[in-house]
Amino acid sequence: MTGVAVLGSTGSIGRQTLEVIRQLPGRFRVVALAGGTNRTLLEDQSREFHPALVWCQSGDDAMTLRAAAGRTAQWAPMEEMAVHPDVDIVVVATAGTAGLAPTLAALHAGKAVALANKEVLVMAGHAVTRAAEGGGGELRPVDSEHSAIWQCLWGEDFGAVERLVLTASGGAFRDLSPRELERVTPQQALRHPTWEMGRKITVDSATLMNKGFEAIEARWLFDVPMDRIEIVMHRESIVHSLVAFTDGSVKAQLGEPDMRLPIMCALTYPDRVASDTAPRLNLARLGTLHFGEPDLGRFPCLRLALEAGARGGTWPAVLAAADEVAVEAFMRGNLGFTDIPKAVDATLSAHTGVADPSIEDVLEADRWARESVAAHMQKANALARSR
Amino acid sequence: MTGVAVLGSTGSIGRQTLEVIRQLPGRFRVVALAGGTNRTLLEDQSREFHPALVWCQSGDDAMTLRAAAGRTAQWAPMEEMAVHPDVDIVVVATAGTAGLAPTLAALHAGKAVALANKEVLVMAGHAVTRAAEGGGGELRPVDSEHSAIWQCLWGEDFGAVERLVLTASGGAFRDLSPRELERVTPQQALRHPTWEMGRKITVDSATLMNKGFEAIEARWLFDVPMDRIEIVMHRESIVHSLVAFTDGSVKAQLGEPDMRLPIMCALTYPDRVASDTAPRLNLARLGTLHFGEPDLGRFPCLRLALEAGARGGTWPAVLAAADEVAVEAFMRGNLGFTDIPKAVDATLSAHTGVADPSIEDVLEADRWARESVAAHMQKANALARSR
Repeated sequence: MTGVAVLGSTGSIGRQTLEVIRQLPGRFRVVALAGGTNRTLLEDQSREFHPALVWCQSGDDAMTLRAAAGRTAQWAPMEEMAVHPDVDIVVVATAGTAGLAPTLAALHAGKAVALANKEVLVMAGHAVTRAAEGGGGELRPVDSEHSAIWQCLWGEDFGAVERLVLTASGGAFRDLSPRELERVTPQQALRHPTWEMGRKITVDSATLMNKGFEAIEARWLFDVPMDRIEIVMHRESIVHSLVAFTDGSVKAQLGEPDMRLPIMCALTYPDRVASDTAPRLNLARLGTLHFGEPDLGRFPCLRLALEAGARGGTWPAVLAAADEVAVEAFMRGNLGFTDIPKAVDATLSAHTGVADPSIEDVLEADRWARESVAAHMQKANALARSR
Repeated sequence: MTGVAVLGSTGSIGRQTLEVIRQLPGRFRVVALAGGTNRTLLEDQSREFHPALVWCQSGDDAMTLRAAAGRTAQWAPMEEMAVHPDVDIVVVATAGTAGLAPTLAALHAGKAVALANKEVLVMAGHAVTRAAEGGGGELRPVDSEHSAIWQCLWGEDFGAVERLVLTASGGAFRDLSPRELERVTPQQALRHPTWEMGRKITVDSATLMNKGFEAIEARWLFDVPMDRIEIVMHRESIVHSLVAFTDGSVKAQLGEPDMRLPIMCALTYPDRVASDTAPRLNLARLGTLHFGEPDLGRFPCLRLALEAGARGGTWPAVLAAADEVAVEAFMRGNLGFTDIPKAVDATLSAHTGVADPSIEDVLEADRWARESVAAHMQKANALARSR
């Protein structure tokens, strides 16, 4: 049986990971579970899967959680889980920078990392790919777009890749005019047309920042320069992404929008397992698929992300940190939707980047960006009030 | 350099094969050229590629053709070309039953066969796959649909295939009513909406018989039973076909309609070569792709073909032979378009099939079907005149 550590087991991807594991009995052993603040769910999961290692963000719950998991269960931080000898695959489904250290540790230790966390590669793609090369670990994408590209590359020579084409649903506001975009509310931003996801990523989908992050991730996952990564709008989210090869052939992976399929691929690779967990695609019933160019004018976050990705160094880390703070402000009602890219842009413009950054440089850039964007927003708000 | 024999070099696929070879200098040597009745073109090709072996259907041109190819060129029948020691890949681009013997000979001799001829697998899929297994030869599809499926299967386990989905443009008459279909002319049938091909295959596309043949071919090429092969209508001919896997994932191969890409894949496998021969796909510019169910009521040839494929034995050979004679009669103006399926259906109904046929059984069924369908058409015409 394959040993799995699920970091972020109470989030959307974590829960679906456990669902996939549940539906493939005898194939996986859940060795470690780490959750956020949803202690009740984490206890339930521990009771069901009896992990050897448990951890919870609200740290004082160690005793109850260990009791739920079973008498021998140990309390262990995520970095320890990631390198445990019984763990073969580490599912990194935590949000934010918390996923970085366990990812690096797992790759150094030669583990497979099923990566659902965006920030890890956006901030520190450099260091992560280096850790994988050095330790013999292996990155497996869990995002539907990157899983699609990954599947299209099975049996192919990476040297024959001409372009990667990431598809984008366009998010909640794809049909709004620039004027309408100025007045959207957080509640509206959380209604994604095709995918059910966490709150932050749903807002990032509405700004298209999420697609920019994915382009940066793809750059590191598949070692393809940013200028050969394209975005194409595709409102139905059926074609999950495409690879164009140097002979002119294009391959795509398709499916109904359901994260359990990419999770299953990451867990069972190099096998495909027979499973009816993922819904079946029926193209004839769907009828029509639409494609189009992204509108960088209405969605400047995408342009900012592609530019930061192309510059490299600490710029993507600044992009991600500034975006996180700006999106939080938007969700609290303290920032307009169209002010998100303005705040991020101002922060990127003020940044003095480091070209080949260490992890420390990245974390310092992250810290600086959070302060800088907060100061920018404060100033902008003060200015608005004084008018 | 890879030695190539091009059987049917003056036809549409043969000419495009030589175009691909011309654009990849230093990679291939044309060892053998066999043409039909276009002697002038075959001479030009022989002068350009200096094949060691030449052959022409209009057999008395041996001297001029050998002179064009070069002083050492030999006159050799296609079966001899197929097994020549300098030949690595045999491109079988002849129409009709003429491709069968050289295909079997090449596979017996362990050669790779790039197969563009439909009849070979439709009539004798059994014998052909057996020859490949016995002799160590390898079948590589040249049809865009089968090439798509083949490319989607690279790096995949054949055991993980759940369904093959062949796309169909719908042919020249996809938008006509049953009543309009009764009155179409051969000239109208030859205007295919997305592909430029030979005359017979263009009419077969208009009846959807061609798609039925392709389903039977797919059954043999990929060892998938007929009931797991689906047809989906797709008018733009951009998604060339798809593979659905047992985990719910679907892969597709896409491209502008251009036969040079599948030809290139068959010639250069397992490599992809960098080449701008095939036009580049731009989904955003295309905008919309349509999919739908095939209408077996309007296009009964597809139903007949799927049924004959499922029955197996000599039925597909009878299907192909009866269709060929009926289409010829349609092209001469002696049969209505909607009478093609009627003639084929009558012939299939009158057939006493052989379940596990030898090549002799298949050729006998072919002969019988041609006689039988001709007799049926004569009777039907006599009946129509007497009214």
